[in-house]
Amino acid sequence: MYEAARNARKAAVDMAVLTGEQKNRALAGIIAVLQENAQTIFDANTRDIAQAQKDGVPAPLLKRLVFDAKKLDGAIHGIRALIGLDEPVGRLQLATELDEGLELHRISCPIGVIGMIFESRPDALVQISTLCLKSGNSVLLKGGREALETNRVLASCIAEGAAREGLPEGWIYNIESREEVAQMLSMDNEIDLLVPRGSNEFVRYIMDNSRIPVMGHADGICHTYIHASADPGIAVRVAVDGKAQYVAVCNATETILIDRSVVKIILPLLVNALEAAGVRIKACAVCRELIPGLEEAVEEDWSTEYLDLIVSVKAVEGLEEAVDHINRYGSGHTDAIVASDTTASDFFTSRVDSANVFVNCSTRFSDGFRYGFGAEVGISTGKLHARGPVGLEGLLTYKYKLTGTGQIVADYASGKKHFTHRKLDIN
Amino acid sequence: MYEAARNARKAAVDMAVLTGEQKNRALAGIIAVLQENAQTIFDANTRDIAQAQKDGVPAPLLKRLVFDAKKLDGAIHGIRALIGLDEPVGRLQLATELDEGLELHRISCPIGVIGMIFESRPDALVQISTLCLKSGNSVLLKGGREALETNRVLASCIAEGAAREGLPEGWIYNIESREEVAQMLSMDNEIDLLVPRGSNEFVRYIMDNSRIPVMGHADGICHTYIHASADPGIAVRVAVDGKAQYVAVCNATETILIDRSVVKIILPLLVNALEAAGVRIKACAVCRELIPGLEEAVEEDWSTEYLDLIVSVKAVEGLEEAVDHINRYGSGHTDAIVASDTTASDFFTSRVDSANVFVNCSTRFSDGFRYGFGAEVGISTGKLHARGPVGLEGLLTYKYKLTGTGQIVADYASGKKHFTHRKLDIN
Repeated sequence: MYEAARNARKAAVDMAVLTGEQKNRALAGIIAVLQENAQTIFDANTRDIAQAQKDGVPAPLLKRLVFDAKKLDGAIHGIRALIGLDEPVGRLQLATELDEGLELHRISCPIGVIGMIFESRPDALVQISTLCLKSGNSVLLKGGREALETNRVLASCIAEGAAREGLPEGWIYNIESREEVAQMLSMDNEIDLLVPRGSNEFVRYIMDNSRIPVMGHADGICHTYIHASADPGIAVRVAVDGKAQYVAVCNATETILIDRSVVKIILPLLVNALEAAGVRIKACAVCRELIPGLEEAVEEDWSTEYLDLIVSVKAVEGLEEAVDHINRYGSGHTDAIVASDTTASDFFTSRVDSANVFVNCSTRFSDGFRYGFGAEVGISTGKLHARGPVGLEGLLTYKYKLTGTGQIVADYASGKKHFTHRKLDIN
Repeated sequence: MYEAARNARKAAVDMAVLTGEQKNRALAGIIAVLQENAQTIFDANTRDIAQAQKDGVPAPLLKRLVFDAKKLDGAIHGIRALIGLDEPVGRLQLATELDEGLELHRISCPIGVIGMIFESRPDALVQISTLCLKSGNSVLLKGGREALETNRVLASCIAEGAAREGLPEGWIYNIESREEVAQMLSMDNEIDLLVPRGSNEFVRYIMDNSRIPVMGHADGICHTYIHASADPGIAVRVAVDGKAQYVAVCNATETILIDRSVVKIILPLLVNALEAAGVRIKACAVCRELIPGLEEAVEEDWSTEYLDLIVSVKAVEGLEEAVDHINRYGSGHTDAIVASDTTASDFFTSRVDSANVFVNCSTRFSDGFRYGFGAEVGISTGKLHARGPVGLEGLLTYKYKLTGTGQIVADYASGKKHFTHRKLDIN
């Protein structure tokens, strides 16, 4: 493992200087090798699934484990889209003349070595490793134990496809043992960034057990708040979509807040629509007085990510209580207001401290593909580096390049020379 | 302490929505209160210095502890410059039409609560707290024990000046006890970012003892590499300035690398110039064969930050060995090449994995003021978030604001509606 990490670090230096053309050729090479080895991949996946069935792996997990022709097509489609994206490395972000003949450039560059840890889905391996390639990073991958054989074949196809096009060895390494994961979490000198994907317990475990920076999110406790000025039709549509359009995801609404002044009008409409969508409702005392049959929400519900057809509903005094509730119980992921009053929605979006703040639309929109980012590394609820849906730029940093003709600081300290600090055109 | 942090978090919501005008008025208010209380500040500082002398605090530390009329002028000058900077919050960074009536905006916003820990210099308190104000953040400050009374008066002047202009209470809190620092380091739910300033042991201690992200740098092991194609005059000037212009700083050169093919020509010139500047030289075997009197450099020297008039010198086979040496022993801070061959300097700047990579100029240039950033939060050797000299932008993050008219994801998932992903003009 230590050797693999050192090799990855070494390869990262070469990866950083590849041209866009070289990287795109490598991505095309990976597509070719995946296609040539399609049957081998499917066979490995069949063995994984057979073993998982024998081990009594639950059905939803089994489903995510499948890597068939359709999944391969999806993966290849993703790589083709990546080839089409602009080259992210070497972009000039800032240029300043500090003095005559002394020019400062800020240039995008890869982060270095990415540690990617994910649960069962083998398609994540293809997606993340090709994202790392496009952004010029090395990657250490650890997939779910259930997908061991599939991941092994996929990783070796990717390594082979890239090697065929001359990429440095060691830029990708597939970790198979648990001991190696523990080692990986401790290698904060060798690994620059961890990107975990999986359940919130899983991500939290990674965050709690490593000093390496983690990009991602644990909880996704998202809110839809229905303001007094909301159009009732829009409010109900947006809240039901936020909860019920797809429940097993981080951007699904888990709590609906309703202004007390309109709860009498909104609640019956909302309950009907939610129940029609098969959603179980847990409600606050005010709501249960209005509709006595509703199940009771307890304190714990406000900080629960159901990831299921369950929602908590609470009446609030108004905008301020809604914002306070969200900043207290939310996870800083995605929170929406439904309101026709723009003063109210501006108050909400400027004060709710979340990566994604929405007005009159479903929380389910917070997603890199829907945002038009082309490729998604993940969604981050951290406030440093990348926040919200993260595209390729989340795998990049920058460096300052200063080019002179022999300038020394002593001349500026003595007043013999002076800085000009003239902004240069970067286009 | 916990209450102070909670108050800071609460105040952060109000700080985030202040206008540029409100913040600039508050900064002007701070200048006024500092001026009104100048004598009180100087008196407190005199008491701190008397106590420090009694405690046998060493002279260089005593010097940094001084806060006199000149330091106050400097601090006020810094605040005036801050007032002159563009408002950093609320900047539109990206705008995309996802579909008709569904617009995505990415907007800069404060990070939230900053924990600032610094050693003796009281001017750092003024600088950092006003930077936090300008960027709309709350700040918890912990200064050096030696400056206790000075810091107390300064923090209370800043709080009063800001409060006069209507800023929320609790946005600034001055920590005085060591117990509170330990508490602070453990409050990763309440504090978003730590900015430590001080010795490398001090910064490393903070990094090792908190799960809160840290922006800064511990070591500054910077290199000046003299390539075979270097102009000898430029090489010597740049190397001597890098080492000797000011030694007690992170961007001073600690190791000089020289291509073996030119070491016979360069070394005598370099040694003369370094010795004339009072620098003690520790040299590799190759160099000591050329100039027998030189002191021996041992393995440990390559990873030592002298912060003194001492430099290590090593002959290398060429560009690749130089890059490998720097990536292995350096701290990713600032590294320079002296070369007239641009293929060589391009190789160097693209492969050296440091925040600042320089060509034909002194490592001492890596600094926010010299870069023209107007205000400096610090220099970061981390690769996530901000890297290199960090201006106000290091205290900012962004949020995605999506404004719709009732859009739901179900319509796009079913194919009834389609995303347009049209880039909008952000100027």
